[in-house]
Amino acid sequence: MKKENSKYRKKENSEENRREVFWGDNDYSFEGIKVVPLGGLGEVGRNMMVLEWKDEAIIVDIGLNFPEEKTPGVDYVIPNISYLEKNKKKIMGVVLTHGHYDHIGAIPYILDKIGNPPLFGSALTLGITKKRQEEFPLQPKLKLNEIKEGDKIHMGSFSVEFFHQNHNVPDGHGVIIETPAGNIVHTSDFKFDLTPTNAPPTSFDRLTEIASRGVLLLMSDSTGAESEGRSLSEKVIAENLSTIFEKAKGRVITATFASLINRVQDIITLSEKYGRKVVVEGYGMKTNIEIAKNLQLIKTQKGTIIPSEKAADYPDNKITILSTGAQGEGNAALMRILSKQHRFFQLKKGDTVVLSSSVIPGNERAVQNLKDDIMRQGADIFHSQMMDIHAKGHAQEEELREMIRIMSPQFFMPIHGQYSMMASHAKIAREEGVPKNNIALIDNGFILKVDKEKIDISKKAVPVSPVMVDGSGIGDVGGVVLHDRMELAESGIFVVIAVIDKKTRRIKNSPDIISRGFIYLRESQILLTEVRKKIMEIVSKGGKNNKDVKEIKPEIKTKLESFLYSKTGRRPLVLPVVIEV
Amino acid sequence: MKKENSKYRKKENSEENRREVFWGDNDYSFEGIKVVPLGGLGEVGRNMMVLEWKDEAIIVDIGLNFPEEKTPGVDYVIPNISYLEKNKKKIMGVVLTHGHYDHIGAIPYILDKIGNPPLFGSALTLGITKKRQEEFPLQPKLKLNEIKEGDKIHMGSFSVEFFHQNHNVPDGHGVIIETPAGNIVHTSDFKFDLTPTNAPPTSFDRLTEIASRGVLLLMSDSTGAESEGRSLSEKVIAENLSTIFEKAKGRVITATFASLINRVQDIITLSEKYGRKVVVEGYGMKTNIEIAKNLQLIKTQKGTIIPSEKAADYPDNKITILSTGAQGEGNAALMRILSKQHRFFQLKKGDTVVLSSSVIPGNERAVQNLKDDIMRQGADIFHSQMMDIHAKGHAQEEELREMIRIMSPQFFMPIHGQYSMMASHAKIAREEGVPKNNIALIDNGFILKVDKEKIDISKKAVPVSPVMVDGSGIGDVGGVVLHDRMELAESGIFVVIAVIDKKTRRIKNSPDIISRGFIYLRESQILLTEVRKKIMEIVSKGGKNNKDVKEIKPEIKTKLESFLYSKTGRRPLVLPVVIEV
Repeated sequence: MKKENSKYRKKENSEENRREVFWGDNDYSFEGIKVVPLGGLGEVGRNMMVLEWKDEAIIVDIGLNFPEEKTPGVDYVIPNISYLEKNKKKIMGVVLTHGHYDHIGAIPYILDKIGNPPLFGSALTLGITKKRQEEFPLQPKLKLNEIKEGDKIHMGSFSVEFFHQNHNVPDGHGVIIETPAGNIVHTSDFKFDLTPTNAPPTSFDRLTEIASRGVLLLMSDSTGAESEGRSLSEKVIAENLSTIFEKAKGRVITATFASLINRVQDIITLSEKYGRKVVVEGYGMKTNIEIAKNLQLIKTQKGTIIPSEKAADYPDNKITILSTGAQGEGNAALMRILSKQHRFFQLKKGDTVVLSSSVIPGNERAVQNLKDDIMRQGADIFHSQMMDIHAKGHAQEEELREMIRIMSPQFFMPIHGQYSMMASHAKIAREEGVPKNNIALIDNGFILKVDKEKIDISKKAVPVSPVMVDGSGIGDVGGVVLHDRMELAESGIFVVIAVIDKKTRRIKNSPDIISRGFIYLRESQILLTEVRKKIMEIVSKGGKNNKDVKEIKPEIKTKLESFLYSKTGRRPLVLPVVIEV
Repeated sequence: MKKENSKYRKKENSEENRREVFWGDNDYSFEGIKVVPLGGLGEVGRNMMVLEWKDEAIIVDIGLNFPEEKTPGVDYVIPNISYLEKNKKKIMGVVLTHGHYDHIGAIPYILDKIGNPPLFGSALTLGITKKRQEEFPLQPKLKLNEIKEGDKIHMGSFSVEFFHQNHNVPDGHGVIIETPAGNIVHTSDFKFDLTPTNAPPTSFDRLTEIASRGVLLLMSDSTGAESEGRSLSEKVIAENLSTIFEKAKGRVITATFASLINRVQDIITLSEKYGRKVVVEGYGMKTNIEIAKNLQLIKTQKGTIIPSEKAADYPDNKITILSTGAQGEGNAALMRILSKQHRFFQLKKGDTVVLSSSVIPGNERAVQNLKDDIMRQGADIFHSQMMDIHAKGHAQEEELREMIRIMSPQFFMPIHGQYSMMASHAKIAREEGVPKNNIALIDNGFILKVDKEKIDISKKAVPVSPVMVDGSGIGDVGGVVLHDRMELAESGIFVVIAVIDKKTRRIKNSPDIISRGFIYLRESQILLTEVRKKIMEIVSKGGKNNKDVKEIKPEIKTKLESFLYSKTGRRPLVLPVVIEV
């Protein structure tokens, strides 16, 4: 079965290998297709696209995004599905294009809420999806349906056919969706690669064949649209990595994303070529290698991968450490190796460290510190600003032009990317002859309606405000909570507790003060004494005719805030607690 | 006087223009010079270097650095001067190389503590220093001593001579310091520019003349060492900006750093060329232009700069808005224009926005959002990833090689830059023939001892842990406070207040709960009820034999923390307040 699969991938387009899966009811009367982007437009990540026709809807990808500076404490950001919850009954199925978290990562948080529809994806995509779902034992079992290149799924009036796309994870696909209005092509993330690792090269024949059916609307990946020229082939990367392996005299420590399964294959293959055993470090890395090996999407010779505790049995020049942590993530394996907190490994002179990944915006400083630390400890370092040892998975300007030329769509919609990337992509499409009015450059939530003659964009957007995942809470962290967190991070908190005697209306004892993140309390005794005096004044000044607690609290807050600011130039969150006894 | 100055700058090296200033006592017996970097090594910013000989010390620059992700709420990071405080009496003077805050910005926080020694710097450097000091009315008056190219200051056994360097602020200098051990050259920040804006070109004659005196130790700027080739000339930038001005049909809105005074000059000159009036927006921009204009270091025609309220009197194609905010800073003028919160201006279709600055690491996301917003609002945008409209102020690989070749120093010390930049610079020096053992690649705080024959690096570092400035507090925010802030930002705070009756040892009323940044309390009533129940259980379970308050508090903390984590997956800071009445 496995072998057939891998053989199959080579026989693209061969009719006899196509399966047809039917789903829902067919209804071919026509009124225009609604395209509803719930994520992935104006941002890199959180990809989710809904296609709707009458009472039928299908979804392409349900991805997550990673939090940014303004969302402290948040684990993930996921699409807002209020629009879908109202239209739950319409949903016939979800198409998953590939196994990256920005395409499948929000499934555990969303699927149950939209009626647990069936999922369609390749073996690896489903493998990663399934493994992740295991971390959510309370969620219902997923309805997984494996598809292969060329498979066609019928869901109501939609038919979805998968075509192989190259990216930096294997087993990824674009889709052509037959609809009552015409064919819609969704490229998903892609690059053209004639010499990829671990995957068949881009088949322009297949793309041409798809285009020959007529493309009403092309939705294409914009992530690389601001980069000139063409993306690097994985072959170039493998060659450059090979040079590093050839010259390395001690251990080679490679750090990359666990999701870059093709890169992982490169590193394993090179280790075998140069007689090195491979130690795998990091939970995500171990899991993904296991899934991909089981599907024969990562190939290793017997005995190449050894347990960490066996590494000491080999000389340094026979060892590769394959690790996570290329972004300087504090808890990743590479950081523990650097900070001497790893159980088995410490960095040493003679080691060669290879950071084979791009730097995610926001991580620049952490990666710089990582580089500095590696060099300080006397190891050699190679990173992607020094030589081409990382290729992004996204088509650049020339490839995007080619995709538009091949598909020659009637309408064009840039997807996947910051607004500036989508705008550059729209410009490319205009230059390739798509009329301006046929291009839908829109943000998340705006509905594109498309039929055989024209497109129309809704004036209003459906709700797309990001939903925060924090711990086990989904959506219970919002504007107010995040605003408070950022204020707390700025200047901390200052809690004062005053106990008032009901009868005398006077303060009992000295007020308690608790503060965190504001100032060293121990070194600020004078300030604290003054604060206590101020509180007692406020409470006591009216004597027995003293005010109500409800009036005292805001007065303490206002007066202390301005007092603390005048003394320290800081604005901690002042929380007065007034207790009557 | 002013005219003489500007004439003077052209007459580099002319003997008659040199002044000699004597300071402190001379003592020529020799024991080796100590070089003590208190900041600027292993980091970009916070530059401060101490040179010491016996009982004499001079300082080069007293700069600040900007805070990073791990120091929330901190305004600036400044050098640790505990080493200097002990050696205060030795300090004879401070040499300021140029007017950027990473070279002069820590003066208001430090100078008083080291005995308010005299400062030596160019007119512009002192102008900016003085203006900034006005914001600190409690600080003593600075002892400012203006120097010019070629001036020589004698401080004890040290003689310091200034030589012109090109950078992106005018009136900047390197220094050659004569010491009993030999000559030390400190390049400060520099680039080679034969066609600069607003400044004389690099004089290789002058550099050669300095080198001819013999250079014992060269300390050179490493910021650009990881970039190949040569830095761009300001002329190229001006030409590219000119093209943009030529084509712009509406207003030109330029955003750059207020400190890039040469770029500001370019924009003013181009506005005049294309018949545009200039509106200046942003406090820092206004201040710097005023200082530089007074020194004739920015030249404008009469009437070019107009007040904001007059802009409406001119057609759009006759207006340039010169603004701060190229880093996407929330409160900068450009952001207010974009978000329709500016008093006079709103962005509109037809505007051309020019971001003429590099992106400071850590600001990538903010700048991307800025670009997106500008494009969404239909304005044209140009930024430095699109074309060369920003030149960094730092020499790149080829220029650094040349500097080393010209100076042909006996010893070499890379300064100013992350460790990886300094290490690359050290590599360049080795390639240029400086023996490995003659290169001091060191971190802040390590003392380099240099005499005519050898260098020696201390095994231990003097204290250099960064000192945080937060509001009016200097150094009172440290590890614990910052750690608390980051914890608060992660999951917020949860304060519970229990009032216990001294006699019955039972809880009075229901415990109060105050929380910020953790969860929406209103939507979490069930959780709060459970928390209250838990607290009452803990307090009451022993009845009259109940524990001491001291025991109850930690018990409440531990139990609530694990309870909240089990319910929410979050770890807010739990602060129990137990009051006995």
